[in-house]
Amino acid sequence: MQVKDIFVSAPGKAILHGEHAVVHGKVALAVSLNLRAYLRLKVTTTGKVCINLPNIDTSQCWDLSELRRLIHNFHGKRDEAQRLDAELVKRLREFVGATNGNLDTCSMATLSFLYIYLSLFGSGELPSLTVTVWSELPTGAGLGSSAAYSVCLAAALLCTSGVIPAPLKEWDHTARWCQEDLELINSWAFQGEMIIHGNPSGVDNAVGTWGGMLRFLAGKIIPLSRVPLLRILLTNTKVPRSTKVLVARVKDKINKFPSIMTPVLDSVDAISCTCEKVLSEMTCEPITGEHYNILEELIDINQHHLNVMGVGHPALDMLCRVTLAKGLHSKLTGAGGGGCGITLLRPEKRRREAVLHSSSLCLIWDQLNTRLSSGHKVKLHHFSSACLYCLWGRKKVYPWTTAVM
Amino acid sequence: MQVKDIFVSAPGKAILHGEHAVVHGKVALAVSLNLRAYLRLKVTTTGKVCINLPNIDTSQCWDLSELRRLIHNFHGKRDEAQRLDAELVKRLREFVGATNGNLDTCSMATLSFLYIYLSLFGSGELPSLTVTVWSELPTGAGLGSSAAYSVCLAAALLCTSGVIPAPLKEWDHTARWCQEDLELINSWAFQGEMIIHGNPSGVDNAVGTWGGMLRFLAGKIIPLSRVPLLRILLTNTKVPRSTKVLVARVKDKINKFPSIMTPVLDSVDAISCTCEKVLSEMTCEPITGEHYNILEELIDINQHHLNVMGVGHPALDMLCRVTLAKGLHSKLTGAGGGGCGITLLRPEKRRREAVLHSSSLCLIWDQLNTRLSSGHKVKLHHFSSACLYCLWGRKKVYPWTTAVM
Repeated sequence: MQVKDIFVSAPGKAILHGEHAVVHGKVALAVSLNLRAYLRLKVTTTGKVCINLPNIDTSQCWDLSELRRLIHNFHGKRDEAQRLDAELVKRLREFVGATNGNLDTCSMATLSFLYIYLSLFGSGELPSLTVTVWSELPTGAGLGSSAAYSVCLAAALLCTSGVIPAPLKEWDHTARWCQEDLELINSWAFQGEMIIHGNPSGVDNAVGTWGGMLRFLAGKIIPLSRVPLLRILLTNTKVPRSTKVLVARVKDKINKFPSIMTPVLDSVDAISCTCEKVLSEMTCEPITGEHYNILEELIDINQHHLNVMGVGHPALDMLCRVTLAKGLHSKLTGAGGGGCGITLLRPEKRRREAVLHSSSLCLIWDQLNTRLSSGHKVKLHHFSSACLYCLWGRKKVYPWTTAVM
Repeated sequence: MQVKDIFVSAPGKAILHGEHAVVHGKVALAVSLNLRAYLRLKVTTTGKVCINLPNIDTSQCWDLSELRRLIHNFHGKRDEAQRLDAELVKRLREFVGATNGNLDTCSMATLSFLYIYLSLFGSGELPSLTVTVWSELPTGAGLGSSAAYSVCLAAALLCTSGVIPAPLKEWDHTARWCQEDLELINSWAFQGEMIIHGNPSGVDNAVGTWGGMLRFLAGKIIPLSRVPLLRILLTNTKVPRSTKVLVARVKDKINKFPSIMTPVLDSVDAISCTCEKVLSEMTCEPITGEHYNILEELIDINQHHLNVMGVGHPALDMLCRVTLAKGLHSKLTGAGGGGCGITLLRPEKRRREAVLHSSSLCLIWDQLNTRLSSGHKVKLHHFSSACLYCLWGRKKVYPWTTAVM
């Protein structure tokens, strides 16, 4: 065991195109946001395992002896992500009081942490440590906050346990792992996601792990190596909704009007493919206004299609209308029915203008940079303070960054 | 020649589904409105031919001798509608001063009248008569006002010339012609439409002639015998637009994004077919709320598709939004980009409620019942005064009615 302190960070994601259609076998494009989760792991000598999640007011400690009892006769394989160990999940659910009726964020986050911790360390000596995770990502907004959390957990615990090596230093303050290690991190993060969400697609943890843009089709996730830097305005309508209900609504509509809805899914598929092509062109030829014209048209068309699917919301319509009045094009991102919307910003729009736009829209964004653990200075790229726009699809993709403390 | 007075009326139309898609080989459904054009023909002894079109401030008289000169060596076939007689059109354009640069409504209406009059009477004695046409249909709003006018002209002049017999009395105040006569009327009305519009589809004059609902596909017009009575709110946004420009815009978008737009056209096609099926069901089984639910969903989906095609307008968005807030579903009808919108009303909504809705919407409708010739009392079905809703798709279809005076 090579236990040492580590500080890791993984990004959240937004769906650029293909939400809902992806459930029906069509292409979706997911892009990493420059909103991130940050995890600091400190080795301690307290004989305790502590987790602090300031964003969700959670702080818990367990004696190592308590945890040891949970993994009696435990023989996990640390170097490969297996199927979820149902017996361990069951024991942990009872341990943290997260029985069927209790699926709150705190319990799920704790469960996910303990599962990965015990799976990786259970066959040897349990280390005493304190993990603190804070995030710029709002929970339940479809921005992959749980996946960013799970990716951080998996990376830090895999590294601390010695299953993967210390990351290679890349820039002054960042370091990264090799592809093989990233795959292992991703597979463990997916375990965490399964505990939190039940049946996740794997897109969120893949974006959290590799960053940049991913193409998702029929369960296959293909990272797109080169994507241009795109600036967006990210709006959280704060309208609560259930992804499950929305997915079911779309399915019902397809069953009710197959001849009408199937072509709409085909059109969304073509939108994702066209968008991918345009973004690819933007990395190898000079970016023109026409590139942006097309991206904007695709956003508008897809937003109409999502309305056809029945996953729109008056708050999202308002976003589209108000941004369009400023010459900007918006669509919902993720499940819809509320949640978040993205607005494409052109490069000639300066930040001051963008902020001006934002304020004129009366857009609400959940305290982006709520870094409750104020001792940590986190450097954000093209992004600072509680600004209303985000940056994603970074030209030079950092799968995710880590700064060894 | 069996010259006698006649009073005829033909309805306007609205496109229920399939506008624009029909240009690309998809199905469109056109329905007759209970907004009509009315024509009174009186035989006179003045030695003059007069036409009065109070809606467009037009009143003209010609000596028979003047008109006779226009048809020197004329040998028209009155019992079949031929291709437009280019030589006669040219002479008439010069006569009324409607050269290429002058395509105003008055000139086109006069031209159309003189063309049909001279074609039908030119090979014999020109009768002295006065024709007065007034209309509840606004011009240039995509509601088939010119077609209703042309149908009235064709019917009255064919009947007056003796090419078709006097219509058979049907109800107390109405009479109608047999199918064969209607076909001849329709073909002559199409001549009038060609003069006015250049290259019309033939849908408008077909609805004007047969009324009810028509299915239009690849140039073929199929009357649908049974359709339920549907009440709609008809809104004229008064936003002027060019049908030609809008048709070209859709074509450009299809050429730009074929893989995205072709499925949208397929979806519109399926909407028209589904709508036709539901309307057919509504005539043979008890009408349920679910029938209306489906009709409303089809309206919403198609409106989104029309926005995808780029033929929406903020005024139409406003109509959709404001009516939806009242639980009503709307779409544009016709070319879009402004023009008219239709809102489906459920049968349980009483007229008072509908009017209330209308006023709350601040919807504008061009003085529906502007009957400038106040001497004529025109009986309207389920419709009187400048009310904001219209009735079309009449269960018992009167192709068009005529009351011999």
